[in-house]
Amino acid sequence: MELPGDVVDLANLVSSMTYRRIEEIVSGKPRELYEASMHLVRAGGKRLRPLALVLASKMYGLSPEISSWAAAAVEILHNFTLIHDDIIDRDEYRRGVPTVHKVWGEGLAIVAGDLLFAKSYEALLRLLDYGLNYEKVLSAIRELTWAATTVAEGQAMDIMFESRETVTVDEYIEMVRKKTAALFKSSVVIGAIIAGAPDEDIAKLADFAFNIGIAFQIRDDELGLVADEKVLGKPKYSDIREGKKTILVIYALERASEEQRKVIMSALGNTKASREELEKAARVLIELGALDYSNKLAEDFIRRGIEALDSTHPRDLRSRETLKQLAYYVTRRSY
Amino acid sequence: MELPGDVVDLANLVSSMTYRRIEEIVSGKPRELYEASMHLVRAGGKRLRPLALVLASKMYGLSPEISSWAAAAVEILHNFTLIHDDIIDRDEYRRGVPTVHKVWGEGLAIVAGDLLFAKSYEALLRLLDYGLNYEKVLSAIRELTWAATTVAEGQAMDIMFESRETVTVDEYIEMVRKKTAALFKSSVVIGAIIAGAPDEDIAKLADFAFNIGIAFQIRDDELGLVADEKVLGKPKYSDIREGKKTILVIYALERASEEQRKVIMSALGNTKASREELEKAARVLIELGALDYSNKLAEDFIRRGIEALDSTHPRDLRSRETLKQLAYYVTRRSY
Repeated sequence: MELPGDVVDLANLVSSMTYRRIEEIVSGKPRELYEASMHLVRAGGKRLRPLALVLASKMYGLSPEISSWAAAAVEILHNFTLIHDDIIDRDEYRRGVPTVHKVWGEGLAIVAGDLLFAKSYEALLRLLDYGLNYEKVLSAIRELTWAATTVAEGQAMDIMFESRETVTVDEYIEMVRKKTAALFKSSVVIGAIIAGAPDEDIAKLADFAFNIGIAFQIRDDELGLVADEKVLGKPKYSDIREGKKTILVIYALERASEEQRKVIMSALGNTKASREELEKAARVLIELGALDYSNKLAEDFIRRGIEALDSTHPRDLRSRETLKQLAYYVTRRSY
Repeated sequence: MELPGDVVDLANLVSSMTYRRIEEIVSGKPRELYEASMHLVRAGGKRLRPLALVLASKMYGLSPEISSWAAAAVEILHNFTLIHDDIIDRDEYRRGVPTVHKVWGEGLAIVAGDLLFAKSYEALLRLLDYGLNYEKVLSAIRELTWAATTVAEGQAMDIMFESRETVTVDEYIEMVRKKTAALFKSSVVIGAIIAGAPDEDIAKLADFAFNIGIAFQIRDDELGLVADEKVLGKPKYSDIREGKKTILVIYALERASEEQRKVIMSALGNTKASREELEKAARVLIELGALDYSNKLAEDFIRRGIEALDSTHPRDLRSRETLKQLAYYVTRRSY
């Protein structure tokens, strides 16, 4: 699945605008701290949340010149969560570069994340310089705060799931709603709020982004199983090695024979598992039909999300169309 | 140094009001995460920042009923920094209880801190329910964001100092301004902002709290050297063991003979140092006059802070008097 040419152009524009905003906000002393905070931002990433936010704003007539400050806020928040996630999961690579704690040590990495958290609010406060009224900025701050709280709850669930014997699909969906989908939802909602979208449309856009966010995470789980390391920017099978209860693992464990279960469990959360053991476990997941199941599940969330998006009444229909293409793109990435 | 009876009564009132606000804000699921986040809050602490904030608000006529929400915000932020600090410093005890990461593990402790960070903004947003205007709440949010950014910068300096050979007194003061004094300053400033204090007074109160905050940290360095473990709530000499460049260490290293330097350096940052080695190093610091020096330095900051406070023009002079008593209390705590 590829993005059409004009969408790619917009994506690149938003990405570079957002980056410039972040560079302006995240600068100061001591140098080492700010370098650590900018490390993953510089390494790139797809900047999907900024693009979704800018598109939601454009739907109701607000230009990227202004909305890119809010886009910077959500991207900064996202990068903060990545730095702390990598410490928690002991990940050594992300976006093809060593993680922040591998380069600067754990202490400075924790603080670099904390700094970004604060800076995400600073980015939102910049909106006041562009004539946005107090009420809109406060609503955006409330939404960002909700996202940060919810992501923390989801992250805690994810951590606790690793040491649990069984996790149900419903529990997984709840975790993903919080850990991944919440920030997609808030990105789109903040974009709509600052552009002055009507409340009914904000609710529909929230519904859209929540569903697409869940589908995105399901796809991410799949990619961890089947994508190349080059695409992933980190070692293959790290989810299995870290004991992540991905949708694939949850589905497979519910259906595994005694023997299949043994193969999965010997690799799951085993930091010393060999490449062969990991591959064997991955094969069992696929044999049990986990990918077919997750595919159908993701498609269901995508369908619901698109329905919600289609029911909005934006000023700019073309931006809605582009947002739809983006939704398909992030949830149907090839592997 | 003791607080007068009526100040103690107010301190207890503010402490329990702040605690109730925090309990209301920091509640949700998953339970383990919220328990971890509330752990140090429940263990108590002096809640000096909430008291200072409420007094600054009272000076300009705002009741604790309202200002206690802002007090909750700064206390929540303070507790977030403590949780992350303890992970970074590998401290095992705080306020007489095991630290959050000792009880719940490092991953959940990082997330518990992150959650509190978000919740500090939620507490400020509650002010909108009490008829405070948008502009005041946004100014308070801007001030809290400045504090969080500055504390992160100070924390990073503190971490980097540990691995440095020498640190000057000026660098130490700069670090303490950021790591400790900034949140004192913002507490008092937020209290004044939401009460509608005039800008000149806000600037003077900022000056007051910055100076008192620095004196507070100098006193804290001294306490780490001479106070009982019972008073500290953590093992004695942990600053030396962790290699902290306290004002005492900085002063002593500038004046130590070859032999004295050896005694200090053999204990400083040596996690395996025996109690005897730590005590010997502590004695050398005292022999070199580090305590006399730090005492004079602290008194100088106190004097400047009190001068700034005295130059304000509040509506309620009694609250200013109480704030002054509090400043003396926190900077002249007996040991």
